[in-house]
Amino acid sequence: MSRRKKKHKTGLPPESLVFTGETEVTNPNVTVVRYNETNFSEKLLKGHVQLPTTNGEVIWYDVRGLNNVKLIERIGQSLHIHPLALEDVLNTSQRPKWEDYHNGIFLIARALRLNEKNSEVITEQIAFFFNVDFLITFQEDEDDLFAAVRDRLHQSLGKIRQKGVDYLTYALLDSIVDEYFLILDRTEESIEALETKILADFKHSTRSDIYKLKRLISDIRRAVMPLRDVVGRFVREEGEFVHPTTIVFVRDLNDHVIRVIEMVENQRDMLNNLNELFNSEQSNKANHVMKVLTIVSSIFIPLTFIVGVYGMNFDHLPELRYYNAYYWVWGVMICIAIAQLVYFYRKKWL
Amino acid sequence: MSRRKKKHKTGLPPESLVFTGETEVTNPNVTVVRYNETNFSEKLLKGHVQLPTTNGEVIWYDVRGLNNVKLIERIGQSLHIHPLALEDVLNTSQRPKWEDYHNGIFLIARALRLNEKNSEVITEQIAFFFNVDFLITFQEDEDDLFAAVRDRLHQSLGKIRQKGVDYLTYALLDSIVDEYFLILDRTEESIEALETKILADFKHSTRSDIYKLKRLISDIRRAVMPLRDVVGRFVREEGEFVHPTTIVFVRDLNDHVIRVIEMVENQRDMLNNLNELFNSEQSNKANHVMKVLTIVSSIFIPLTFIVGVYGMNFDHLPELRYYNAYYWVWGVMICIAIAQLVYFYRKKWL
Amino acid sequence: MSRRKKKHKTGLPPESLVFTGETEVTNPNVTVVRYNETNFSEKLLKGHVQLPTTNGEVIWYDVRGLNNVKLIERIGQSLHIHPLALEDVLNTSQRPKWEDYHNGIFLIARALRLNEKNSEVITEQIAFFFNVDFLITFQEDEDDLFAAVRDRLHQSLGKIRQKGVDYLTYALLDSIVDEYFLILDRTEESIEALETKILADFKHSTRSDIYKLKRLISDIRRAVMPLRDVVGRFVREEGEFVHPTTIVFVRDLNDHVIRVIEMVENQRDMLNNLNELFNSEQSNKANHVMKVLTIVSSIFIPLTFIVGVYGMNFDHLPELRYYNAYYWVWGVMICIAIAQLVYFYRKKWL
Amino acid sequence: MSRRKKKHKTGLPPESLVFTGETEVTNPNVTVVRYNETNFSEKLLKGHVQLPTTNGEVIWYDVRGLNNVKLIERIGQSLHIHPLALEDVLNTSQRPKWEDYHNGIFLIARALRLNEKNSEVITEQIAFFFNVDFLITFQEDEDDLFAAVRDRLHQSLGKIRQKGVDYLTYALLDSIVDEYFLILDRTEESIEALETKILADFKHSTRSDIYKLKRLISDIRRAVMPLRDVVGRFVREEGEFVHPTTIVFVRDLNDHVIRVIEMVENQRDMLNNLNELFNSEQSNKANHVMKVLTIVSSIFIPLTFIVGVYGMNFDHLPELRYYNAYYWVWGVMICIAIAQLVYFYRKKWL
Amino acid sequence: MSRRKKKHKTGLPPESLVFTGETEVTNPNVTVVRYNETNFSEKLLKGHVQLPTTNGEVIWYDVRGLNNVKLIERIGQSLHIHPLALEDVLNTSQRPKWEDYHNGIFLIARALRLNEKNSEVITEQIAFFFNVDFLITFQEDEDDLFAAVRDRLHQSLGKIRQKGVDYLTYALLDSIVDEYFLILDRTEESIEALETKILADFKHSTRSDIYKLKRLISDIRRAVMPLRDVVGRFVREEGEFVHPTTIVFVRDLNDHVIRVIEMVENQRDMLNNLNELFNSEQSNKANHVMKVLTIVSSIFIPLTFIVGVYGMNFDHLPELRYYNAYYWVWGVMICIAIAQLVYFYRKKWL
Repeated sequence: MSRRKKKHKTGLPPESLVFTGETEVTNPNVTVVRYNETNFSEKLLKGHVQLPTTNGEVIWYDVRGLNNVKLIERIGQSLHIHPLALEDVLNTSQRPKWEDYHNGIFLIARALRLNEKNSEVITEQIAFFFNVDFLITFQEDEDDLFAAVRDRLHQSLGKIRQKGVDYLTYALLDSIVDEYFLILDRTEESIEALETKILADFKHSTRSDIYKLKRLISDIRRAVMPLRDVVGRFVREEGEFVHPTTIVFVRDLNDHVIRVIEMVENQRDMLNNLNELFNSEQSNKANHVMKVLTIVSSIFIPLTFIVGVYGMNFDHLPELRYYNAYYWVWGVMICIAIAQLVYFYRKKWL
Repeated sequence: MSRRKKKHKTGLPPESLVFTGETEVTNPNVTVVRYNETNFSEKLLKGHVQLPTTNGEVIWYDVRGLNNVKLIERIGQSLHIHPLALEDVLNTSQRPKWEDYHNGIFLIARALRLNEKNSEVITEQIAFFFNVDFLITFQEDEDDLFAAVRDRLHQSLGKIRQKGVDYLTYALLDSIVDEYFLILDRTEESIEALETKILADFKHSTRSDIYKLKRLISDIRRAVMPLRDVVGRFVREEGEFVHPTTIVFVRDLNDHVIRVIEMVENQRDMLNNLNELFNSEQSNKANHVMKVLTIVSSIFIPLTFIVGVYGMNFDHLPELRYYNAYYWVWGVMICIAIAQLVYFYRKKWL
Repeated sequence: MSRRKKKHKTGLPPESLVFTGETEVTNPNVTVVRYNETNFSEKLLKGHVQLPTTNGEVIWYDVRGLNNVKLIERIGQSLHIHPLALEDVLNTSQRPKWEDYHNGIFLIARALRLNEKNSEVITEQIAFFFNVDFLITFQEDEDDLFAAVRDRLHQSLGKIRQKGVDYLTYALLDSIVDEYFLILDRTEESIEALETKILADFKHSTRSDIYKLKRLISDIRRAVMPLRDVVGRFVREEGEFVHPTTIVFVRDLNDHVIRVIEMVENQRDMLNNLNELFNSEQSNKANHVMKVLTIVSSIFIPLTFIVGVYGMNFDHLPELRYYNAYYWVWGVMICIAIAQLVYFYRKKWL
Repeated sequence: MSRRKKKHKTGLPPESLVFTGETEVTNPNVTVVRYNETNFSEKLLKGHVQLPTTNGEVIWYDVRGLNNVKLIERIGQSLHIHPLALEDVLNTSQRPKWEDYHNGIFLIARALRLNEKNSEVITEQIAFFFNVDFLITFQEDEDDLFAAVRDRLHQSLGKIRQKGVDYLTYALLDSIVDEYFLILDRTEESIEALETKILADFKHSTRSDIYKLKRLISDIRRAVMPLRDVVGRFVREEGEFVHPTTIVFVRDLNDHVIRVIEMVENQRDMLNNLNELFNSEQSNKANHVMKVLTIVSSIFIPLTFIVGVYGMNFDHLPELRYYNAYYWVWGVMICIAIAQLVYFYRKKWL
Repeated sequence: MSRRKKKHKTGLPPESLVFTGETEVTNPNVTVVRYNETNFSEKLLKGHVQLPTTNGEVIWYDVRGLNNVKLIERIGQSLHIHPLALEDVLNTSQRPKWEDYHNGIFLIARALRLNEKNSEVITEQIAFFFNVDFLITFQEDEDDLFAAVRDRLHQSLGKIRQKGVDYLTYALLDSIVDEYFLILDRTEESIEALETKILADFKHSTRSDIYKLKRLISDIRRAVMPLRDVVGRFVREEGEFVHPTTIVFVRDLNDHVIRVIEMVENQRDMLNNLNELFNSEQSNKANHVMKVLTIVSSIFIPLTFIVGVYGMNFDHLPELRYYNAYYWVWGVMICIAIAQLVYFYRKKWL
């Protein structure tokens, strides 16, 4: 998870538009997709172009790159998006939320993506504003998160071309949530690998692996938990902007989000258990080290004392004169050692 | 619990039918049971057979094996099951849920079964769709989970043949929940065996036994918790598809589910307590090892020092010349050892 | 707490009557108590006797011993008790619950009793079914749990004889809850004894004492928690079967149950704290053992080295020839020992 | 907190009046305060005196000492207090609660008082019964908890003399809650003293200090938590017995209670953190002890081995014959010791 | 966080005005700001000045310094602020709260400020009372918390000059919450620094750093949690004192507060995880120390025993006479040492 420094704009009046993210896109652009059951067109509006007006088709403006604040502001004014909503678009550390405006619905979700190189998870804020006429999405990044949906639109797969803006919104949210499953499957694999490692044999680094996974899961959790409320609102939003036939699909999306949350909670639980297991294994290892020390010391320290006794230089030390004393001493020492080994064996230390 | 790799279908449009389970049944089949108070027939529809229409009797289609997606799709179309419901049937990592459709009720439960060979628990997704005319159940596996209910139907035990589709659904769910009790009795026995083991004498492996039971209980928990909501909905579903006289039975089923959940929670608690007990016993053992080391070292290290003193080769070391010095040294050493033993005894280390 | 093996009846149709408890009473019997403000009679109906019909007085059937399933079934049919309720009577691992039937109210509570011999707690399921005419109670055991209430009825103590069936039910539940206080006072004493023991001086066995108390408290908790819901329903049940004037007493019973729950929660808390305290004391003891080892070793190991030096047999080892060398060595060694003692004293290890 | 043995009255009919507290007051008495805006009188009714009837003024009966059950019973009958309420008055282990009766409101609170001598906290049950005409309070102890309010009444401070019975009840509850702040300030000081002690330097006894504070806080918690519900009911009780203008004051009392609860929760948290800190410090100390042992042993045990080698008595041991061997051995030993010290220094053990 | 001793006023009648804070401002003063869309004036009312009446413009009285109780009382009387509200203004340990009065709304928030010198956090209680005509704010301190808002008013930035009292209240609360973000960014940096430190290399002091951050976060938490309820009330307060067009801004403020709470909860979580990590690292270090001790002891104690054997002075000890015995002994000892090193290497202790 790339941890971005969040900039907050203290002291500025509310509604002032300042981009607080870190992703500086070299060429922020807007794609305009128009379609109905029969037609489909996709145009790239580079730079400062007047926004087209809607005329019967579903129109989807896809803004990629938020660092051109002027552009965002002009788009916002043309489409009558409330300044506070625009402010939230630019402040990229928003939590997912749902807001009703008189002329449409504004919602924010967080997309997760896997960086295949270093297996880190990148989080990106996606803002949606839609009404019956058009949908506008704001992405921080240039990457095309919504390629799959765009292809389905292009090839007219499923019934997406027969449905309205609300269905398009649902389909995009669904593709974001699908991505969560991929990432959670990945983390679950990591957790199971760690589990095998701990139960078999482990190094010290395992601990910080657990710790990193915990942070990752906690980051995902923060992205998903508020999304539940957002989708929950969507399910109940049957009305001006959302058609009843779309609701059954949103209910399905809701199920997905709940399943994601359950997976997250379950993995959190698994990590806590792993942690405990790790601690126990660690202390078990420490105990083993202790036992080796105790066994070696308990056997040899008394023996060293005995040989010390006969290393004394007293003029009168009768045993030193007996011919077989040396062998007797060995005998006694071997007996002591065996007695101790038996004791340790009975204690199950061996 | 066999952990199956879950396949998710990212990028596909919603409603696309893809089987995501792992259980490949060689010969997926559909059993059709028809009965009323007087008649009972059971036929096996192998392969691609046109589905019969309902005519007054209760009809129960029992689909076993989901890997023939074509077959499932055709059944779905004939019986007018919503594509999203069919999609859930095939995606076998669903959580238990209840969904109202205009032409019937769709619900998912998870059955648990004990693999007697390795005492593992196998989880299987069972989907139900029913209205007043028919019930259709979808099982992943070929095994006959519902043999007991089918026998009761055949032998007309109890009042099952006098009741409708809703009662049949209740009876099947009840047989699934009954299986939970069997498994929880088994895990409770394991927990109690572990408890005895820890309180008496234990090996290192006990720890991973506790850990495995914890995961098992947590898997059962994930199957049961959402089932509570499903059965809770069933209880309140008095209406078009559920007859009031069935409700009193479903209330009983609800009690069973609540009891299962309480057993699960209780066993979780017991495992946590066992864990603590295990940790304490482990550290108690470590302390015992430490005490042995301390007692042996504390007694013999000073004595070794004393004999070392009289092993020095100084030309002038007066004690060496005294005739009884050797006996005096022994006397002093025995006194020191006894003093220490008394000290350790008083400290209750012996 | 005697842990009985619970038998579950998988595969049987619902409503089949099977006794799943373990208490086999040699002579199950039914006592019939009839009373009004002026009259009181008590008869023992042994064996297979036709049940009397109600005629104006309050009638209380008290069934003791559930292993005669035939008898229970006949009673149930005569009094029109719903088969599912009867099934719950016989399945003695039910959780406390409250159920409305059209002809009366069915409720289950769990009584706790102290076995004075081994200070174990015995739990017993008590089922009640009552309407305006009669109350029937089902006890697993022959022991007379309700002797105190029966005496009050006989001697017409308080206003119990002036009130109806609902008040009798309340009085019996109250006597069950009173028993809980006795047992919780006993466990609180045990906890306080353990506390004193740990703060003063303790043995290893203390740990399993804590563990056993924890299990006991958790068993009591499972009996009491659902009872809260049952009594909560009773309080709100003003209507056909419960007279308004009884409600004020049930509210009092409700208070008692809440106080029992608070005591249980408090004792759970106390046991957790004791556990922590025990762990800390245990590790404190281990640290003390460690200090003894460290002090003895740190002082004598260096000294042993020194005397070892002058035990070497080099032909040329000048110190050996000095006349006072032996005394000097002693002097040095005493200085080292004192220096170390001062160091340990400053570190507060002594 | 003085832990009184609670007596429960099992087997007695409900409504039987038995005093279950331990505070035996030698001379239970009743003070009668009557006042309105202009008049104020205070009389002590010793022994068995007929209770006066109300006549326009606010009347406050203050009963101190509950061991004269006869007296309490007579008072209860004269003022028409429900027998169950009277029973609660005498059973001094009640939890704070609020109960509506047709002729007034009955409530119970617990007062805390600091025993200045041993800095223990004494808890006392205070029962209130009030309607528009009179308030009666029942205290277990002879001590005058309400002296401050009585003074305000006497000197007509604030607007207390212009208000009714409900305001008097509020004022008395407020004085009880004020006492909580005093005690919590005291415990907060203790916690902060403990914190300083642990961060600086600590003895073993610190642990049982933490434990005792934990129990104390948990006792206070049990007194305050149900009081929140009581005061919450008071706030919503605008009606027959509580005048709307009093509600704004009760809301203020409610704020106080919530603040007390927050303080309690916060202090619980602080104690848990302290506990952790203590454990960590303790194990840190143990590690330090271990390091000392390891350093001393690791340096001197190998050296002792070396000098042991040249203490052997072999006829042929060439090094013994070299003239400078002794100095060489010293050199080697010093090098080994220095190498180890460098190693330990690098490991930051020194 | 500067921990101020809270003074409570036990025994005093409610509504008595006593300043319980510690911040004694030498010259408490009141600033009066008046503005509408075209005009703006700011005057400082030093000492005892008659308060001006409102006349169409928005009037904001900003009181700094609460130790002049007389002044506060006179202001309260002039503006008809309820005595209980005034009491809360002066009692500076209030928790944030919202209270409706018939003539306006009274609310309390807590501002946090960073003391740049010692990086401590200072908490200050800010009270607001507003209706449609005027807002009055009470600050404990002389510092100008609201400088940014005053500047915006002066320079007519944003639309603040076109809006009413409710918007001004919102803007001031928003500037308080903005400050929270600054502080939480600071604590997050500290936590991340600690994390790096622990994962790399750490000293004992790290532990008390974690502890101090925990206390700090818990202090912030106590300031923010009740603020959520306050702002939640503000959102729903559309009515006499709050204009509908302001609500959309307050909703935004609400989002900020929720995000602050999430940050706090997240940081609490992170600190708990860090704590665990620290404990694990600490015990890992202890285990390492133990291993060094065990390896050194296990190797040299047996060898010392062997050389001790040949240091014995028996007259008859045959090995001493063999010419190569010395070299054989060395050989045996080297073999033993190597065998042990191999064993330790295999155990991964090296």
